[in-house]
This record gives sequence, structure tokens and C-alpha cells, in this order.
Amino acid sequence: MIVDCHGHYTTAPAAHGRWRDAQVAAYEAGVSAPPYPAISDDEIRESIEQNQLRLLTERGADMTIFSPRASAMAHHVGDEAVSAAWARACNDLVARVVELFPDTFVGVCQLPQSPGAPIEHSVAELERCVVELGFVGCNLNPDPSGGRWTAPPLTDRSWYPFYEKMVELDVPAMVHVSGSCNPAFHATGAHYINADTTAFMQFLQGDLFADFPALRFVIPHGGGAVPYHWGRYRGLADMLGKPPLREHVMGNVVFDTCVYHQPGIDLLFEVVDLDNIVFGSEMVGAVRGIDPETGHHFDDTLRYVDALRLDDASRAQVLSGNARRVYPRLDAQLRARGR
Amino acid sequence: MIVDCHGHYTTAPAAHGRWRDAQVAAYEAGVSAPPYPAISDDEIRESIEQNQLRLLTERGADMTIFSPRASAMAHHVGDEAVSAAWARACNDLVARVVELFPDTFVGVCQLPQSPGAPIEHSVAELERCVVELGFVGCNLNPDPSGGRWTAPPLTDRSWYPFYEKMVELDVPAMVHVSGSCNPAFHATGAHYINADTTAFMQFLQGDLFADFPALRFVIPHGGGAVPYHWGRYRGLADMLGKPPLREHVMGNVVFDTCVYHQPGIDLLFEVVDLDNIVFGSEMVGAVRGIDPETGHHFDDTLRYVDALRLDDASRAQVLSGNARRVYPRLDAQLRARGR
Repeated sequence: MIVDCHGHYTTAPAAHGRWRDAQVAAYEAGVSAPPYPAISDDEIRESIEQNQLRLLTERGADMTIFSPRASAMAHHVGDEAVSAAWARACNDLVARVVELFPDTFVGVCQLPQSPGAPIEHSVAELERCVVELGFVGCNLNPDPSGGRWTAPPLTDRSWYPFYEKMVELDVPAMVHVSGSCNPAFHATGAHYINADTTAFMQFLQGDLFADFPALRFVIPHGGGAVPYHWGRYRGLADMLGKPPLREHVMGNVVFDTCVYHQPGIDLLFEVVDLDNIVFGSEMVGAVRGIDPETGHHFDDTLRYVDALRLDDASRAQVLSGNARRVYPRLDAQLRARGR
Repeated sequence: MIVDCHGHYTTAPAAHGRWRDAQVAAYEAGVSAPPYPAISDDEIRESIEQNQLRLLTERGADMTIFSPRASAMAHHVGDEAVSAAWARACNDLVARVVELFPDTFVGVCQLPQSPGAPIEHSVAELERCVVELGFVGCNLNPDPSGGRWTAPPLTDRSWYPFYEKMVELDVPAMVHVSGSCNPAFHATGAHYINADTTAFMQFLQGDLFADFPALRFVIPHGGGAVPYHWGRYRGLADMLGKPPLREHVMGNVVFDTCVYHQPGIDLLFEVVDLDNIVFGSEMVGAVRGIDPETGHHFDDTLRYVDALRLDDASRAQVLSGNARRVYPRLDAQLRARGR
């Protein structure tokens, strides 16, 4: 089977986004947010069937690990209460998608992060989503300030209470920033990729996995700049007196395949071990067009992986095996259904 | 001939760094900085002969386009007057290197940038370095705040007065940040690479080169994450309604070869046109060790380029021709000496 580890609900019904606008406007006006609107199952079905499900089927994948729209998490907007209500609304909507399409989608949650708010305050929503909604992981934002980068590195002890809960629940986090309020950073063209590179370097510089040997992160977008600069990072580990990357970081980190051209995927597979690559497309996401050089969607990453002509075992490992290892709660759900 | 477009004076005599410490301490104490120390020609000769010149000779290159140590520019430290005095001291020291080794080094200047200071204030130092010291370019810091990213994008009109002078003098800028005062960003492992990616995306998002068709930038460190995500950037140009990258950005931007492993260099040459690649190593720089996988220095990038087995014309283009085109004042100096 083929599991896409990286999909966001970018096509949610318009009423969902309108409520967010109203919520933010209410916050700014100092009044209560309106009640969350009624959204019918049919609206949700349509938003999925015409988009993610259609493309998934066309491309030949089976499942998507699905989370709320990343660029709309906007942890920097409003305050902690605004983020909490928004995260809950987004997660509940993803849960409805999963309920309507249980064979195709499995949930990953948005957290109620807010600049300066202790990460402990995100523990309850993680637990609710995993225990009550059956989600299998979360998206952790290393920069809730939205491009101001005011949070301490992910290796800082202030993050530890959240990591303890991740380990207890046996769920990984995808390191994923949201929109940028900094005009220096285009969200999907700079901020996303920078965050991936930054998180990796934080892990390299610290010793987080000595404290949490069972903690697991997905660094999306092919690991940012890291595989392209793999020699630089191997050399920096050496300069900083750290063990080789394979021991120091790569026991706990995987990269996805959201790299939108063949040479990038070729490089990823050349320098990174097969154990550390999980299939992902971020479809429908940042880049929706068709590559004039290939005639196919830029984000149809399965084509690039297929072009590698991996042997069957390696292909299965990248397309589902690694995801089932990194997301054991997904594996358990699939096994329970005989998949 | 082989021109390395990216070298910093990272091995300057200790007295130079001690003066900087004293300058900053004086600023913090609210008193005048001490006079700049006497540094002998022999000290400078030794610092170069044992390091850059030795390695350059061992590796078989001929020249380095040489600028002050990037991580020490620290535009975020002190105020504008501190930056001005420090930039002048650093540039004058590089000028002495060039004077002592005129066949091997050519100068590129540090600018007296400071957070919030208008870029107009850097015009005079650029002009002094180019006209009086014979420098051929400059390092432009897109984030003088040192990791807080408080400056507007490089496409913002506030940068234009500086670009006008660059065009008038016919000199390019290497986009190069300095040290990071943000604990989220390791300087050479995250901040440098992020800045390269960010600058490219700013150029993609804007229309700067419509206003300045003759403006030229070197984006170092192999273009940050850009070549690895070339499909993403081609797709984003499409999504943003911009012309193809080749027309929109790559007429004015080149990437250097500071990518410290063979697969990265292979990818760079696979996706980026030969016209857009200039040889560079950033030696002696961020990564100084020997790669246990090859037995050679990580930053001996000439080996990776040689392994591509380019035809003679292509090799010459990347190793010196493109640099002579991008830095016409270098070309003029070389021609004057019959090289």
C-alpha cells in the first residue's frame, strides 16, 4: 500500500475559513467569536472527493496522513485562547473527514500554540486528538511567532513536557511552520524550507535524542536544504564534536519526499538512508501546477519515486513501511483492519 | 585559470579581532574605541601563506575573491558608527592582503550596515573600496539584525539607492548574512543557508530586475536550498504568475559551488545552467575538516567540479569565465596584467 504522510486540508469548505475570519475580527474587536457554523457531511465529502481523493486515486496512492491547513494555523494571530479554539475547530473538521473516509484518511492534529505560551498548554489537545479522535501524530510549529523566530530551539528544555507526552502516546511530530507575518519570508517559498533546515540544525547542535531516545520527528519538504548540503552537515557535526549524523540525529528523524522534481528526489535517495525517507506529496498544497517539462503535476511525487526503480522491498519501505514504523498508531489501525 | 569567488579573511591576525572586542566593549561602556593596532606585513603574510595561499596552491586554484570574515561582520552589534569603523578596518586589512598578494587575491568589501540604518549610508564605503582600493564587489547583508529579519525584502525600494551605485560602479553583491544573535539559528548551519533561500525567493516574488536589468547578485552556498527544490521554485513562479525563472531571476543571479559533497554539486550542475554557476569554496570557512568518506577536505570543491568531467570550455566558464563576467572589474584587472 501507499501512504502519503503529508497532506493538509487545504480545501476545507468556505464556511470554515469564514468562521476563522470572524473569530479573528471578534478578537480584534474585543468581543466573543460567533458560534462555529454548521457544515454538512455533503460539503465535506465534496471538498475531498473533488480534490485530494480524486488526485490520490488518479496517482495510485491509498491513504493520506491528514492535518489542518498548515499555512492557516497562524499561531501568531490572536492570543492563546484564539489559537485553542481554532485548533479545536480545525482538528474536529479533520476528524470528520477521517470519519467519512476512514480507509483513506488518518488524522494528525494542529496544536494550540501561541507565541510565548508554554508548550504544556498544547498537551491536552494532543491527548484529546490522539485518544478521543484516533489521530496518529501532530504538527509542531518551531516558530509560533510566524517568521519572527522568537521561540527557543526545539532542543530547549521548555519543549520537554510536550515531548514526554509524545513519547507516552507514541506519536511523532511533523516539524511544520505556518504562514509568515514577516515580509522577508514568503511562506511556502522561504519560511517552510528555512524551518526544515533550521530544525535539523537545532537537532544537530543539541543532544535532544540522548534525553528522548524514542522521540520521532518528520522534517517535511525533503528535509529543507539538508540533503543538498549533506556534506556540510556531516562536516558541521564533526566541527561541533558530535557523533556522525546517522547516530546523532537520523535515529529519530525522517524526511518526506515533498521535493518537486526528479533531480531533487534522486539526490535525496542518494545521500539519505532508505530508513529515513517517508513518502509524501503535500497535495493539494504549495505548488499546484503542471510542470511544463514533464507534463505532470509538480507535486505528483510518486512519479519521481517510481522513476528510481527501487526493488520491491525498498519501494514498500518508503511508500508505507517507514510511515507505519514512525506512526505506530497508524500501523495498529491498519493491522486492526487487516491491511 | 581558476578563480574562487568566495573566500573570507577568517585567519586575520589576532590583533585585528582583539581590536574589535575592544571596540565593542568601548561602545558598551560609552567611551571611545582605542586606536586600531599596528599589524605588520609579516603578520599578514604569515596568516595568508599558512592558510588560504597554502590550500589554494595545494588544490590548484589561482585566485580568490576575498572579503572580510562574514560571521564577524556582526552588523547587529553596536550602532551605525561602530559598524562603519569596523567595516573600514576590515576592508583596509583585506586591501593590505591584496597589496601583498596582488596575483592571488582581489578584494570584496564589507558594508557598514546596521539595523534600521538607511542603506544609502553604505554607498560611500562601497565607492571608497571600489574606486580607491580597487575592490570588485561587496557583500550585502539582507538581515543586518543578525537573525531577527527586521529588514524589508531585497526587492524593496529602500535598497534602490545602493543598487544604483552598484550599477554605476558595475560591481555585483554577494548576498551574505553574518553571525546570528538568534538562538534558533546556528550561523553557518542554518542562518547562512536560510538567507540564501530567502533572498532567492524575494527575487522570485518581486520584480527587481525589471527595474535594474544590469544588477547582479551571487547567492552563495550553492544557492541555499534552491537547486534541491528547483521544481518547487519553478512551480511557485508559475503560481505567482511570474515569467520562468530563467528570464525572471537567472539573468541576474548566479550560485557558487560551496556545496560540500559530490551529490550536491552533481545536482547543482544538473538543474542550473552553466552560465549561472561560479566556482567557490568558502575556504577557510565554515567546514574545515576532512570528509572520512573521501579522505579530502569537505570544502575542496574543485574536486567535485573536476569529477563532473566537463568539457574544457564549460570547465573554464565555471572556474573563471563566469566570475570574470559577473565581476567585470576583476576581468579588467586581469586583462591589464595579460591574464
